[in-house]
Amino acid sequence: MKRILILAGALLGFAVGAGAQHARYVDPFIGTAGMGHTFPGACVPFGGVQLSPDTDMIPHNIKGEYQPRTYEYCAGYQYGDSTIVGFSHTHFSGTGHSDLGDILLMPGTGEIQFVPGTAADPDSGYRQRFSHDTESAGAGHYEVTLADSGIRVELTATKRVGVHRYTFPKGEEGHLVLDLDHGIYNYDGKTLWAEVRVVSPTLVTGYRITNGWARTNYTYFAMEFSEPVLEYGCKDKAPAYYQGGYGRYARMNDFPEMAGRKLVAWFKFDTADNPRLTVKVGLSATGMTGALKNLRAEAEGKSFDTLRASAEQAWEQELACIDMEGSEAKKTMFYTSLYHTMINPSVYMDVDGLYRGLDHELHRAEGFTNYTVFSLWDTYRAEYPLLALIKPHQAEDMVASMLRHYEQSPHHMLPIWSHMANENWCMTGYHSVSVLSDAIAKGLKVDGQEALEAMVSTSSVPWYGGLGEYIQRGYVPLEKTSTAASNTLEYAYDDWAVAAAAERLGNESVARKYRARAGYYRNVFDPSIGLARPRYGNGSFKDPFDIKQTVGQGFIEGNSLNYSFHVPQDVRGLMELMGGDRKFIANLDELFGSDLPEYCYADNEDITADCLLGGYVHGNEPSHHIPYLYAWTSEPWKTQYWVREIVDRFYRPEIRGLGGNDDCGQMSAWYIFTVLGFYPVCPGTDQYVLGAPCIPHAWITLENGHTLEMKATGLSARNRYVKSVKLNGKPVDRLYLTHAELLQGGTLEFEMARTPAKRRGIAPDTKPYSL
Amino acid sequence: MKRILILAGALLGFAVGAGAQHARYVDPFIGTAGMGHTFPGACVPFGGVQLSPDTDMIPHNIKGEYQPRTYEYCAGYQYGDSTIVGFSHTHFSGTGHSDLGDILLMPGTGEIQFVPGTAADPDSGYRQRFSHDTESAGAGHYEVTLADSGIRVELTATKRVGVHRYTFPKGEEGHLVLDLDHGIYNYDGKTLWAEVRVVSPTLVTGYRITNGWARTNYTYFAMEFSEPVLEYGCKDKAPAYYQGGYGRYARMNDFPEMAGRKLVAWFKFDTADNPRLTVKVGLSATGMTGALKNLRAEAEGKSFDTLRASAEQAWEQELACIDMEGSEAKKTMFYTSLYHTMINPSVYMDVDGLYRGLDHELHRAEGFTNYTVFSLWDTYRAEYPLLALIKPHQAEDMVASMLRHYEQSPHHMLPIWSHMANENWCMTGYHSVSVLSDAIAKGLKVDGQEALEAMVSTSSVPWYGGLGEYIQRGYVPLEKTSTAASNTLEYAYDDWAVAAAAERLGNESVARKYRARAGYYRNVFDPSIGLARPRYGNGSFKDPFDIKQTVGQGFIEGNSLNYSFHVPQDVRGLMELMGGDRKFIANLDELFGSDLPEYCYADNEDITADCLLGGYVHGNEPSHHIPYLYAWTSEPWKTQYWVREIVDRFYRPEIRGLGGNDDCGQMSAWYIFTVLGFYPVCPGTDQYVLGAPCIPHAWITLENGHTLEMKATGLSARNRYVKSVKLNGKPVDRLYLTHAELLQGGTLEFEMARTPAKRRGIAPDTKPYSL
Repeated sequence: MKRILILAGALLGFAVGAGAQHARYVDPFIGTAGMGHTFPGACVPFGGVQLSPDTDMIPHNIKGEYQPRTYEYCAGYQYGDSTIVGFSHTHFSGTGHSDLGDILLMPGTGEIQFVPGTAADPDSGYRQRFSHDTESAGAGHYEVTLADSGIRVELTATKRVGVHRYTFPKGEEGHLVLDLDHGIYNYDGKTLWAEVRVVSPTLVTGYRITNGWARTNYTYFAMEFSEPVLEYGCKDKAPAYYQGGYGRYARMNDFPEMAGRKLVAWFKFDTADNPRLTVKVGLSATGMTGALKNLRAEAEGKSFDTLRASAEQAWEQELACIDMEGSEAKKTMFYTSLYHTMINPSVYMDVDGLYRGLDHELHRAEGFTNYTVFSLWDTYRAEYPLLALIKPHQAEDMVASMLRHYEQSPHHMLPIWSHMANENWCMTGYHSVSVLSDAIAKGLKVDGQEALEAMVSTSSVPWYGGLGEYIQRGYVPLEKTSTAASNTLEYAYDDWAVAAAAERLGNESVARKYRARAGYYRNVFDPSIGLARPRYGNGSFKDPFDIKQTVGQGFIEGNSLNYSFHVPQDVRGLMELMGGDRKFIANLDELFGSDLPEYCYADNEDITADCLLGGYVHGNEPSHHIPYLYAWTSEPWKTQYWVREIVDRFYRPEIRGLGGNDDCGQMSAWYIFTVLGFYPVCPGTDQYVLGAPCIPHAWITLENGHTLEMKATGLSARNRYVKSVKLNGKPVDRLYLTHAELLQGGTLEFEMARTPAKRRGIAPDTKPYSL
Repeated sequence: MKRILILAGALLGFAVGAGAQHARYVDPFIGTAGMGHTFPGACVPFGGVQLSPDTDMIPHNIKGEYQPRTYEYCAGYQYGDSTIVGFSHTHFSGTGHSDLGDILLMPGTGEIQFVPGTAADPDSGYRQRFSHDTESAGAGHYEVTLADSGIRVELTATKRVGVHRYTFPKGEEGHLVLDLDHGIYNYDGKTLWAEVRVVSPTLVTGYRITNGWARTNYTYFAMEFSEPVLEYGCKDKAPAYYQGGYGRYARMNDFPEMAGRKLVAWFKFDTADNPRLTVKVGLSATGMTGALKNLRAEAEGKSFDTLRASAEQAWEQELACIDMEGSEAKKTMFYTSLYHTMINPSVYMDVDGLYRGLDHELHRAEGFTNYTVFSLWDTYRAEYPLLALIKPHQAEDMVASMLRHYEQSPHHMLPIWSHMANENWCMTGYHSVSVLSDAIAKGLKVDGQEALEAMVSTSSVPWYGGLGEYIQRGYVPLEKTSTAASNTLEYAYDDWAVAAAAERLGNESVARKYRARAGYYRNVFDPSIGLARPRYGNGSFKDPFDIKQTVGQGFIEGNSLNYSFHVPQDVRGLMELMGGDRKFIANLDELFGSDLPEYCYADNEDITADCLLGGYVHGNEPSHHIPYLYAWTSEPWKTQYWVREIVDRFYRPEIRGLGGNDDCGQMSAWYIFTVLGFYPVCPGTDQYVLGAPCIPHAWITLENGHTLEMKATGLSARNRYVKSVKLNGKPVDRLYLTHAELLQGGTLEFEMARTPAKRRGIAPDTKPYSL
């Protein structure tokens, strides 16, 4: 009933506020200090615009001299900073590699400056000081006062339009600086070319092409001002040799066609008389025409307040799919996490379906919405399974987008880590096969034959990360790549996902072949230590070998102690390899119970003391399923203990509350599943492994109209253990639920207790899937 | 009859050769030495591809250090050179400023080299020596043998496809180098970005974006090989900071997605077994998809020989519009000139009408063919009037293209000097108004109202070259621009053209206003010297002042002696200003009769001793109409003397035979008109001023089906004077013909004599138009 009322409110255009029962708990500042790498700015669910303040952008050096602090600014903002450089339109949410920060606007008064200046000396550029006292943000909006000028800044967004409202101090002449050289992951020369075109006193179009983490990134814009520009001009900080007949290109004032490598444009307005200026910036990857089309379709004729209300409503509508009870702090953590699962992937096409493909040509999306930002090494684990459950329509479109990527790839591969029409080849594995297989397992609308073809093709590319050798000899030799052992483990799981899909699609020959490959994980286990260990081509294991060190031991961003558990497809097999139930439990216990010496992660950006639980690394993804592996053992109750520890330690509703990079929603999706009491340990199966809920009561409204109620009776700080589980009143002895069971809705009731029910779920028929 | 037979031959697909009665006289080498700036390579009439060898490309320096020899290489080729760098797909014909040279291919054997090397040490790069003995070219084809490898190169083209046939020496392993950093008007950093995509072993697509004379130039290609690529790779001579996860972008071999700032790709073929390799390169400005579409539409499934025959036929068909009799040498000069009038403007759109507009966005050409390369300061004089007469359909499309440029211009201006979707602002005036007015005068299909709006808008832009001051005070003050005097003269003529169009379109208020402006030329005449002379804002004339110096005296690329005659719209008024008939004749006589001291043009690239006739400068355009100005005087026969002198001196069918830059056909169009006996002194009128023919007999087949026969009875080396003129048997006493008269066809007969008919054409009613 509550949900219906909210929806009706949204449909009738009620101002959000009292009605925004879910969105109001979103706190975009969570994760903006430390290593969360979230941004506080304005966006809408899965929107292509993330309009947010950049507080710095420590540039790389084109000579390849790495600047360690670049990592901190993956999302452009660090809460500890005291100056704002400006407001740019594109940001990743929680990544561990940086890029974007496109199309920066900064309002100012007085003399126009063309460089950002430094944090140490803010007066040396257009950047300005600010105080968090003047700053606020929520789902779909952000505001701050720039201290040096007194300008009040309010931001909101639609899917494809960033909306700024600047209120200049009374009687002051104000201007905007548009810095097309600014960027996150910047270096001298990142912007290959930029153009700005003054179409009329209230409309400016343009674009920039950058060579950053996305090798070739086209960002077009159309910018509409609520007040006419009085004067404008630009500075090209790297002027081209030819400046037009009579140097006309070089005219710095009122010349409506600007272009350059390092272009900074400025626009003056009569803010003394009209202190309030609204700027709507439509974005597109297809052209200025596309950007203008997007601007017109989504923002034309609408006031800032209307657009802000729409953005909040859009969040309210998406977040309302899960109702919950709990403390204000729990609600804040829950809805902020849910919010973080719906920023990336982001829409990457115009309102009419035109988009830029991986081949950098324009394509028309027929029957689907094209998405980008596929951080697959992270998100195949829980983010996509979560969307498959609560946002199946969007998940289907993401799968369709991946299939178009495959179609456009000259490698004939699905995305590895792709954004803005570029494959950046980051991380390892080919985990889009997991996403596709999971979508098929969960009954999403997917073209099964095309998906299987894409999965087989992707997993057959010999030059990719030692895959040729893996196929030949059953493991990736260490000579081939420094991450040989984890590659082998990841490929084996991905291959299992291909096999599962083939089986579901009735293709037994593919299923057989890939089921065999799914067992290749065994080939990197050293029986002498009972752990995964990289091997050379001659079969010998790496020696010396450090099972705790996370760098240089054959595993990507992880150590053998954690990565050895990366066999979600065959936990039973893994247990045997490790020496059986007792030894497996001992290994898990030791992981959580021991320490990770600092030398083991000192050189690993993605692991900090903030995210360690003993030797278990929650801040980085490869370990996310590990707490649930007790389910296969004789001590399943230990899962219940550790998930509560993790939730309490690494998900605090504080600015520095996240235990690691949110990684495009993966960390948050882990949280959402876990606090609801179940987790998709092996995407590609239809099973969710039961853990222990951390919130007392929740209602998941599914797209099929059913509601699944989750009740954790007796839950408290002390009552973290599950005594019994009932689904629609019937006892569930199994340690898992199926997707079909969840889709039917009804009531899932956990009875919570202070002490563990040690006999629960130890019978073989209660165990989750294993190969 | 002859023409009909030829057309039938073309339609039936006969092999050209015996049938190519006109095209076989084309000698593309004419003008390739000295300052002609023509290229010898392959193209089709008005084609977007000009596939031609580049013998060098002396680069500019990004620091702005001008390299004088850059000027020589406007068309990429100098006959005196002994090495070829490679074969690129775009070239200007005869310009005085350089650009293009896009998408260079060079075949080779042995070790692959990534730099062109130097002329002094050809072995230091991929360039190769060649001998003119192995070289030949004609309308639509070019061939040469590369001496260092022995590779035979044959080139031909369609409108949008460059076609290469390479025959490798027997048993040698051959390769192609694709240098996307190569260019004409090159400097370090001209190529902003390039991508290459290996789609299949026989298809490669890609593009480059350059910042050259065209500020932002997008050139996309799709390249099809007749044999599969065995191996490929690239070198990025300016590697980007990020090289993809695991450095995958940096993989130099067999990685099908290459990109970079200075990208050189290579492709190996099994030429030992298959020595013959045909490469078809489709070009587009809209995208790789467009390039592939163009390739498929124009060249798919056609052999090199078929395409070469088609190219020759295309030329034969266009050149056959004028038949002539005369010596082999005269025919060579005539058809080579006619050929040079049909290279630029060039088609600039895909086969389906998609094109890139001045706003750099994609547009669809509705009902017209979009053209580019509008060298208007040169070509408004005779090139466009010639096309309006013999190729009205193409001329209409060129006018339509200019109107779209106007529509897309944020300055609301017609093109000044534009190419490849860029206004380069070269030279002065706004001479597209002359082209539009002339098209209206000649009855071409033009949207008159839109044209007039565009003309008025273009001529009202205050910041443009002192135009605001010109409108206010009647001349451009010298403080405003260094070419103030010639600007004033050019604006006044252009304004007359606007008035003439307005009059024809019945807009009397515009006509009145612009007729007044047409007289502003008077404001830069100094009565004390009877010549044009720049003035300052306070009305005083420049002092000291040198009437012969072509640099720094207030005239663009010219001196007062020549430029003072630039009043084609009001020759009578000009005569009065100069002191009447006798003084005017004396001025003309002195111009032709005296000398121009070397100091007067030593610093002027566009003027060399090669193009001087006394003080008259034929090699540069502002003087082109001057020999015809005697028509308004009491000694009209002197025109007949001087045009013969000019034809004989500056149009020799030799490699160094052109007296100056051909300037996109302007020099050649002057020749075609002049040898036929008439010339459009004042485009925008419907009149052609009679001169003296230099060929004995010609037939112009008009698009309306009529044929105009020109007969010069008694013409000889000595008989250069016109005794009488008859049109269809009736004596013509006037010194001009009208466009309507020409369109009716029939016979125009000149009776030639050794001595001038001094009484002919001296009566006032015989005189051509004057304001």
